[in-house]
Amino acid sequence: MSGTAIQQNISASSEKYSSEFTKGNLALPPAKKYLVVTCMDARIDPAAAFGIDLGDAHVIRNAGGNAKDALRSILISQHLLGTREIILVKHTDCGMLTFTNADALQVVAGNVGAGVLTSTFDFQPFPDLQQGVKDDVAWLKSHSALVRDIEISGWVYDVRTGKTTQVV
Amino acid sequence: MSGTAIQQNISASSEKYSSEFTKGNLALPPAKKYLVVTCMDARIDPAAAFGIDLGDAHVIRNAGGNAKDALRSILISQHLLGTREIILVKHTDCGMLTFTNADALQVVAGNVGAGVLTSTFDFQPFPDLQQGVKDDVAWLKSHSALVRDIEISGWVYDVRTGKTTQVV
Repeated sequence: MSGTAIQQNISASSEKYSSEFTKGNLALPPAKKYLVVTCMDARIDPAAAFGIDLGDAHVIRNAGGNAKDALRSILISQHLLGTREIILVKHTDCGMLTFTNADALQVVAGNVGAGVLTSTFDFQPFPDLQQGVKDDVAWLKSHSALVRDIEISGWVYDVRTGKTTQVV
Repeated sequence: MSGTAIQQNISASSEKYSSEFTKGNLALPPAKKYLVVTCMDARIDPAAAFGIDLGDAHVIRNAGGNAKDALRSILISQHLLGTREIILVKHTDCGMLTFTNADALQVVAGNVGAGVLTSTFDFQPFPDLQQGVKDDVAWLKSHSALVRDIEISGWVYDVRTGKTTQVV
């Protein structure tokens, strides 16, 4: 095989996964009509940690498990693919708790040059985990473009214990 | 337990997952220094399908496996958490291949009222799968804020066969 070690790993893993694959007839819309928003963090395996079977739920992931950044995907999930419940999960030891926009802009400028990103670029860090979950759930609940009368809950995943606990 | 059936499922799944959890000492930065961008589609399990062990890679997911929508997360992953390779994976039978912005705006207006979203809101649908992968990889390769000299490849996951194949 050619390619980087990571590319070779995907090809080899896919060879094995597809050879044992039996779920080729699942429908496009999520069977359990819910979506999960969580962090891109490497220490989270949403399917295993949150009990999501293949085909059951949309899983949106970004830096911080950020609701605003997920808006386009949430609207598509709700309005075009029929999901009716949102599970938002942030986690302990999140990188987004460790820097400010000014810090991040300085690092980017050091790597690729000053002025490549505008000084107003928002990386959307947040200083407090529990409050961050509450703020994102409140933001979603007040958003006028989301489908009405849906359930929205906020959770914290603990990367040390593997436990997910409801906050709001 | 209280809550919706979905909330109860998360709590019960987490009880079991955490009781067997042995990976509580992983570092925050991804061990294999790469990130995956893929779709939120319910039929994709990135860890299993792409061979990602817990702690190895950031996983960013949104509607379509969209590179532009993932930019904030990619910049944080690269500049603040040291990833140096990007794997972008779109997939067959993607919902984003099935509608236009005008279609989506009409559905949203029907559900929550006209004018809630501006007429310029971009859901970022795309009409061709292979071209969509190539376009997103090209966009990433030309973006001035990404770290230089990184590897970027584009792939397609087949939801019928479970197979992931490199496109570019």
